[in-house]
Amino acid sequence: MTTETNAVSDAQTQVEQDLVDRVVASFDNTDNPRLKQVMQSLTVHLHDFIRDVRLTEEEWNQAIDFLTRVGHITDDKRQEFVLLSDTLGASMQTIAVNNEAYEDATEATVFGPFFVDDAPEIPIGGDITHGASGQPAWVEGTVTDTDGNPVAGARIEVWECDEDGLYDVQYTDDRMAARAHLYTNEQGEYRFWGLTPVPYPIPHDGPVGQMLEAVGRSPVRAAHLHFMVTAEDLRTLVTHIFVEGDPQLAIGDSVFGVKDSLIKTFEQQAAGTPTPDGRDLADQAWAKTRFDIVLAPAEK
Amino acid sequence: MTTETNAVSDAQTQVEQDLVDRVVASFDNTDNPRLKQVMQSLTVHLHDFIRDVRLTEEEWNQAIDFLTRVGHITDDKRQEFVLLSDTLGASMQTIAVNNEAYEDATEATVFGPFFVDDAPEIPIGGDITHGASGQPAWVEGTVTDTDGNPVAGARIEVWECDEDGLYDVQYTDDRMAARAHLYTNEQGEYRFWGLTPVPYPIPHDGPVGQMLEAVGRSPVRAAHLHFMVTAEDLRTLVTHIFVEGDPQLAIGDSVFGVKDSLIKTFEQQAAGTPTPDGRDLADQAWAKTRFDIVLAPAEK
Repeated sequence: MTTETNAVSDAQTQVEQDLVDRVVASFDNTDNPRLKQVMQSLTVHLHDFIRDVRLTEEEWNQAIDFLTRVGHITDDKRQEFVLLSDTLGASMQTIAVNNEAYEDATEATVFGPFFVDDAPEIPIGGDITHGASGQPAWVEGTVTDTDGNPVAGARIEVWECDEDGLYDVQYTDDRMAARAHLYTNEQGEYRFWGLTPVPYPIPHDGPVGQMLEAVGRSPVRAAHLHFMVTAEDLRTLVTHIFVEGDPQLAIGDSVFGVKDSLIKTFEQQAAGTPTPDGRDLADQAWAKTRFDIVLAPAEK
Repeated sequence: MTTETNAVSDAQTQVEQDLVDRVVASFDNTDNPRLKQVMQSLTVHLHDFIRDVRLTEEEWNQAIDFLTRVGHITDDKRQEFVLLSDTLGASMQTIAVNNEAYEDATEATVFGPFFVDDAPEIPIGGDITHGASGQPAWVEGTVTDTDGNPVAGARIEVWECDEDGLYDVQYTDDRMAARAHLYTNEQGEYRFWGLTPVPYPIPHDGPVGQMLEAVGRSPVRAAHLHFMVTAEDLRTLVTHIFVEGDPQLAIGDSVFGVKDSLIKTFEQQAAGTPTPDGRDLADQAWAKTRFDIVLAPAEK
């Protein structure tokens, strides 16, 4: 897929390789062996890229300018380097490398920039929405280990956008909505009211958005509901569930977060259909879904 | 030099490769074929790096934080992304890729961040220093093409730091010093008074300086005098000359700019030694050097 279009002479290849060798050797005295390994590998792959595409000096200038603009739009609320990593699949690859499949443990996906630490606790069966707009969705399931034992007291953080595709932190009024945490009961069960997820674009009014436009890619993320599940002696799981039938699944998730095992059916229920907990939704349609979570051992 | 320390299962390798393939395919609809090639190659090499070192999520966080700090220290006067590219040898590799050796044409090296467009013109034999401190150095040579023909009217831009290791633009008083341009005469000759170059550190009070410290590398550049030579129908040459005997040549130039062919003897002359143009330097020692420049054809 990346073809050498230029024939490079042996002498020129030697000049380029000599430079790579000198840069790699410059890290030989690094005290920290891991830092040494990372910097030497980064050097080799960065130089391979430049040599592979025969990067022009004008393109190098454009790259410096692009990174400068990424740096300048980044602030406490906007992390354009994370968007860049996400849209190049680098975030998802890092997750893949660190969350190797273990038996039938639930798969991980991207964390995203919208988690907050102090979301409110709700009881089992409670409502995470706190006024966020959207179709009510009943979410239930269990948390077990890979031997099938229920995990009691597992902490489940959930968060999602509203029907306008915005997370609470993207509003300027300090609202806290559509996010909460709860704990599994003795049977490892959990359930809560959330919202049926909708697709939304990542922030695309900056350099990463310009890149996506230049390459003809959609900035839209497939609809999803975030989960982070922690329990003693088990591997922390950061993941989403996606919505079967979401057209964005076919177009492509802009950050490559989708895994087939995480696509769930949100069963549509007509207005008036009795709810699992007897809640009266008046004339609202609602949905229900099930997500059974399996946690790998911590050391795997 | 970059060894896979972790054995990766076939299933895991497939998961990682599938992700790479999906990201590469996401660029398939790019209208500009060159942009498509660059982004797809970048994807492959970036993912190779993450997979090669088995980058941890904590290290990914550190990388995002590092790039954020590089972005935030960068402004109109400080270009930390260029320093990062320079210290990783990426700038020099880009130059290597774009300035392939042609017969005996003079070799190129890094441009650096200190060139300015409107340096004053001096006559042949003039003085570029404009009051910058340092040991006077007489620099002379010829500009020829690769057939040995003298190049008349070649424009030579020269710039360097003062004896304190600072370029004029690093002072806050808007001085213009130790930089000028001149033209070769009908015989292709040039000559001027400059300063014997001294080693100096690149700006190292930012994240790139912290990186260099963490890996035990010197931020110091080998002493050098910058040249940029332009002439009709000939390849523009951006280069330096280095100073034979400079101890930094053995320690290592922090941006990998040194090429053996560019190391020149600055012959030390005791105070009172007659100067080539009869200039009276009173009780100052001075140096002289020769740099004969050969320009490749423009299309090579």
